Amino acid sequence: MSYTDLNTSLRTIMTPGPVEVDPRVLRAMSTPIIGQFDPEFLTIMNDTMDLSRYAFQTTNQRAFPINGTSRAGIEAVLCSIIEPGDKVLIPIFGRFGYLLTEIAGRCGADVHTMEKEWGEVFDPEEIQAEIKKVNPKIVTVVHGETSTGRLQPLKELGNFCRENDVLFVVDAVATLGGVEVKTDDWNIDAVIAGTQKCIGSPSGMAPITYNDRVEKILLERKKIERGLSSDSVNERSIQSNYLDLSQIQDYWTSDRLNHHTEATSMLYALRESLRLIKEEGLETRIERHKFHEGALVAGLQAMGVELFGTAEHKMPVVTIIKVPEGVDEASVRSTMIQQFGVEIAGAFGPLQGKVWRIGSMGYSCRKNNILRVIGALEATLIYHGVKVNRGDALQAALEFYVDK
Amino acid sequence: MSYTDLNTSLRTIMTPGPVEVDPRVLRAMSTPIIGQFDPEFLTIMNDTMDLSRYAFQTTNQRAFPINGTSRAGIEAVLCSIIEPGDKVLIPIFGRFGYLLTEIAGRCGADVHTMEKEWGEVFDPEEIQAEIKKVNPKIVTVVHGETSTGRLQPLKELGNFCRENDVLFVVDAVATLGGVEVKTDDWNIDAVIAGTQKCIGSPSGMAPITYNDRVEKILLERKKIERGLSSDSVNERSIQSNYLDLSQIQDYWTSDRLNHHTEATSMLYALRESLRLIKEEGLETRIERHKFHEGALVAGLQAMGVELFGTAEHKMPVVTIIKVPEGVDEASVRSTMIQQFGVEIAGAFGPLQGKVWRIGSMGYSCRKNNILRVIGALEATLIYHGVKVNRGDALQAALEFYVDK
Repeated sequence: MSYTDLNTSLRTIMTPGPVEVDPRVLRAMSTPIIGQFDPEFLTIMNDTMDLSRYAFQTTNQRAFPINGTSRAGIEAVLCSIIEPGDKVLIPIFGRFGYLLTEIAGRCGADVHTMEKEWGEVFDPEEIQAEIKKVNPKIVTVVHGETSTGRLQPLKELGNFCRENDVLFVVDAVATLGGVEVKTDDWNIDAVIAGTQKCIGSPSGMAPITYNDRVEKILLERKKIERGLSSDSVNERSIQSNYLDLSQIQDYWTSDRLNHHTEATSMLYALRESLRLIKEEGLETRIERHKFHEGALVAGLQAMGVELFGTAEHKMPVVTIIKVPEGVDEASVRSTMIQQFGVEIAGAFGPLQGKVWRIGSMGYSCRKNNILRVIGALEATLIYHGVKVNRGDALQAALEFYVDK
Repeated sequence: MSYTDLNTSLRTIMTPGPVEVDPRVLRAMSTPIIGQFDPEFLTIMNDTMDLSRYAFQTTNQRAFPINGTSRAGIEAVLCSIIEPGDKVLIPIFGRFGYLLTEIAGRCGADVHTMEKEWGEVFDPEEIQAEIKKVNPKIVTVVHGETSTGRLQPLKELGNFCRENDVLFVVDAVATLGGVEVKTDDWNIDAVIAGTQKCIGSPSGMAPITYNDRVEKILLERKKIERGLSSDSVNERSIQSNYLDLSQIQDYWTSDRLNHHTEATSMLYALRESLRLIKEEGLETRIERHKFHEGALVAGLQAMGVELFGTAEHKMPVVTIIKVPEGVDEASVRSTMIQQFGVEIAGAFGPLQGKVWRIGSMGYSCRKNNILRVIGALEATLIYHGVKVNRGDALQAALEFYVDK
């Protein structure tokens, strides 16, 4: 068997991740390797921490990436702070809320859940009432649920948790870098982001940040590993070695106490992505995501397809449309990618087969791509026998762009 | 604060990892992203599995990378097969043996260890006697200990474990792709490799393989996560979600049951690295590593520095030399990297400050680099007041190369 040179097609990726990556970020990854103890590497690590703080809108000392995909970041935070029997309250409004229960449960947490129908979010007061009832050590919630396209308001909840001395952990994997996430202002104790969505880096790293309230627990649970110290014992030590934040945070200091070998090229990519965020400006970037959402929604409405869910809590970076009656959703996606080279996403759980999810995140969130996905979708729907308002969608989007 | 364009120096990296990366691999990483459910991505995943089997010398169905650094691969294997109370025997002959105890202990194993002084390896019969005494479920051992530069013979041990129905798990992070590792012939049940050493990819992925004996345990412990299935319950479920092989192996099939979002660019890199191994041929590649070791050792001996340990169990890809009396080892390394742009490594634990470790792995294992590290080391030692046989080292290495 022979293996050809890597010959991938050039795609227009309009899913909720992974999305297209800025050519500057791709180029950064082709930079030759330097060693993990090279003095120049410390500068790259420090830059990445500074730039992460900017993206997280925090003054936390701790802001660095976990070497793994987004759920590695979530597990690192949860397994480092949850001890067996700890009460954890998880409000669920889509697939990734269940993931939080899965991870917390495997850490030995006493998991309490509350659920909303897919498509809705929680009124902060509902969660506050449950906190009073359950009295959890930790509340953890998804900010932007890509499975339903909904955005959970966090500010009031953060204030309430802080006042009641509850740790507040937020999965901002799908929002950070494209939607407002104010770590400090909203009193969030730990935030997990994802690289392959609004940050616009490839999948494989998970930037996180956490404050002194979290660090206090880490220091209490710290156990230096054998091989570096022979006499460190801690009965409360963290159940994972790879995802042990008490060790990883020491690697991210000038001591650089060896834990793993930092993923060099991925760090190059993340630094460049964060630098792009800084150059664009976080506010401008968040506005850009809202702006292109406007064009996409205008186009889809003019086409005559039905949007899923109400506008009030819609994620600006995910737009979900209902699959028209009698249409096979998978074959529409197949036509779009095979004929037009445009990728949109299907769905999970109760929405599987019923909706398509269109992402407009990071570098993929730009005028060309919005117009391409609208055009490809219209032609594909017509090809699959769906009745739409022919030609209206792109005109509506163009008018939106020309007007603004 | 402003953040400059990524301007790293071009280094000659002669450490035991991370090492230099072939320009073809660097280039592969700058390939634009495709989605994880793109039909073309399945081909890339399948190619990577095929090529991994070749590198591991196995016919195992399961051979794929974990999205994390090497220790993520080790933890994925150990935490997926170890259940609380399981007896695990770990022969330790350097730092990374301790890491195995650390990971196994956090999985709840009843850890039994046996230790050798740093610089030695075990006679297989010693381990076999301990297996008879302890009667463990699992024996796990490091193949090449970069902390001491020693190589543990595995073949007899593998046979003995198989005959006695003990699972045999090998950390081949530092050897696979540069030193013989015969997964099937040596009856190894699970092997973990590292990308940033002899495989010659950047750090951040850990290729693993395991056989049906391991998979049987995974299937018994399998629990589909909530969000994908609401009714899956398993009291023996694996303690990590991110490193749960029973879920990850389902992602690496044509079903691609979503677990994480595969690290696209790192997978491009790994595929290209493995393709380079296939093109060079594994035997030729292993011979290349031995060949350049010959030149390096000839040079160092002619220089008059003292090698650490005996030749019999020396790793061909790591050469350790003693720091001469009265020399500050860190300032020698600093001069080498700052003045010559050549990086070698210090040491851990009992060897810290006493030896330098020179790697000759993957793309870094080539004539130019061997001559550069010898030349830079000689000049630096002279600069630091060490008496060496001036000029002899490079002549010895050149003669070695010209003769062969």
